[in-house]
Amino acid sequence: MSQTELDNRRPIGVFDSGLGGLTVVRELRKRLPDEAIVYLGDTARVPYGTRSASTVIRYARGCAQLLVDRGIKCLVIACNTASAVALEILQAELDVPVIGVVGPGARAAVGAATDMQSQSPRPVRIGVLGTISTISSQAYPRAVSLVSTRHEVTGQPAPLLVPLVEEGWLDGDVPRLAVREYLQRLLAEDVGVIVLGCTHYPLLKQLIREEAEQLAAHPVQIVDSAQATAIAVAELLADKGLGAANATATLQLLVTDLPGSFAQSASRFLGEQVDAAEQVDITPSEATVKV
Amino acid sequence: MSQTELDNRRPIGVFDSGLGGLTVVRELRKRLPDEAIVYLGDTARVPYGTRSASTVIRYARGCAQLLVDRGIKCLVIACNTASAVALEILQAELDVPVIGVVGPGARAAVGAATDMQSQSPRPVRIGVLGTISTISSQAYPRAVSLVSTRHEVTGQPAPLLVPLVEEGWLDGDVPRLAVREYLQRLLAEDVGVIVLGCTHYPLLKQLIREEAEQLAAHPVQIVDSAQATAIAVAELLADKGLGAANATATLQLLVTDLPGSFAQSASRFLGEQVDAAEQVDITPSEATVKV
Repeated sequence: MSQTELDNRRPIGVFDSGLGGLTVVRELRKRLPDEAIVYLGDTARVPYGTRSASTVIRYARGCAQLLVDRGIKCLVIACNTASAVALEILQAELDVPVIGVVGPGARAAVGAATDMQSQSPRPVRIGVLGTISTISSQAYPRAVSLVSTRHEVTGQPAPLLVPLVEEGWLDGDVPRLAVREYLQRLLAEDVGVIVLGCTHYPLLKQLIREEAEQLAAHPVQIVDSAQATAIAVAELLADKGLGAANATATLQLLVTDLPGSFAQSASRFLGEQVDAAEQVDITPSEATVKV
Repeated sequence: MSQTELDNRRPIGVFDSGLGGLTVVRELRKRLPDEAIVYLGDTARVPYGTRSASTVIRYARGCAQLLVDRGIKCLVIACNTASAVALEILQAELDVPVIGVVGPGARAAVGAATDMQSQSPRPVRIGVLGTISTISSQAYPRAVSLVSTRHEVTGQPAPLLVPLVEEGWLDGDVPRLAVREYLQRLLAEDVGVIVLGCTHYPLLKQLIREEAEQLAAHPVQIVDSAQATAIAVAELLADKGLGAANATATLQLLVTDLPGSFAQSASRFLGEQVDAAEQVDITPSEATVKV
């Protein structure tokens, strides 16, 4: 095998504050079935979404370094909060290409809004559901304005949706009413496209779609930034000639804490069964799981 | 002033994973108006309730050491999760007396159950609402069995209640339905006493009481472990001659992260206005606030 082929078999590194980023891994595995992936969930310090920017930057640097030390060929920040505040810093500091979830999500939203424009008399507004930190960072309005100045962006913090997903309450009255409360605020601004600006939210996509259809006066399109990010990673690998053709896809899961419900949660986000959990002792405390 | 008087003016140290422990501080300030208090909220790593025991023990040791370095005369673990897994360890390792919230809460629950017993044909069961970690640690059943073997204990994890309180959703349909869901499971076991086994829950006490009255076939008594802990601290100081008589009560707030909504959240838990925030740089990252 050539050196290039060997280099290209290095894994894609993916990190998130917790297990939510596995929704991005799920899309990556669908789209890039030959790639090795190493995933790090910073479960000892989850969630990032309610912390200050400086703390999130410090945590993101630690996660990125751990993955770089594992020999990754590119890094995916599968966390909206960390993408919002740490993407440019990690891009400047690391030798491997770094992709966040905000840029791909914003570009997909502009694409959807442009498609809708022909049927709309007014400019189509983009709404973003995200954590407190992601929304207050204004990362989505900034990313959208890099692509188009035609579409205004409204953000809505939805902090209860992460614990609802973590609890596994994906349907029923409580998640439905919480989603309704957040969507009502967003739809009062007459948005036409809604970006799921948090890697936990794809698990509530069906419920969000149903509620949006009930509440909105006009059709609303839902954009999943996990899907958009997987497409962006595939393009990056093709552009840079970094793809691993005909290799055996492997997935290694690392976590900084191993909660009791780990296998159940991880399987839910990943859409694949996670069985055995092998814990290794790396500072601050890390577990490795082979699936 | 004598050396004893000077020693007794050292502050009471209180820590919690976040700001919820301020409900214990609120009760301490009501009951012990002459005491200085230094509070540490580990807001960079909140919540503890979903983490493994070994991680919580590591975090609790760090918090305790920081407060001991500040010259406290006794330590209150104002966090059910940390009390459940780290109380005995900190009691063995530290030179100052250490009190958790689980023991006082359990003793108050047994007291309430004993009071109810005269009107009940069957033994009164105790129910505990708490985080996943607190409930699975079995700390409340153990603590109750040290006082009485007459009352069985049923635990119910209620992980959504912490984010609901953090979000400030203290009434309305979403918290009401979430509380109802958790209470139904607990009341199906026919409990007569319900312990609020998490320092966030006192902010939902009114709603929990209303729902329990609606749902329960028999009267139900609610026990607030924050109140019970303040009583236990007052007894400890009296027993050991550690009280600060006629001193000026001060409150110093330390946090490991300073989120945007800090003042608002802290004021809600404390029941007093928290105005200015002074940030100091102590590893890993700490802020000090004078109120």
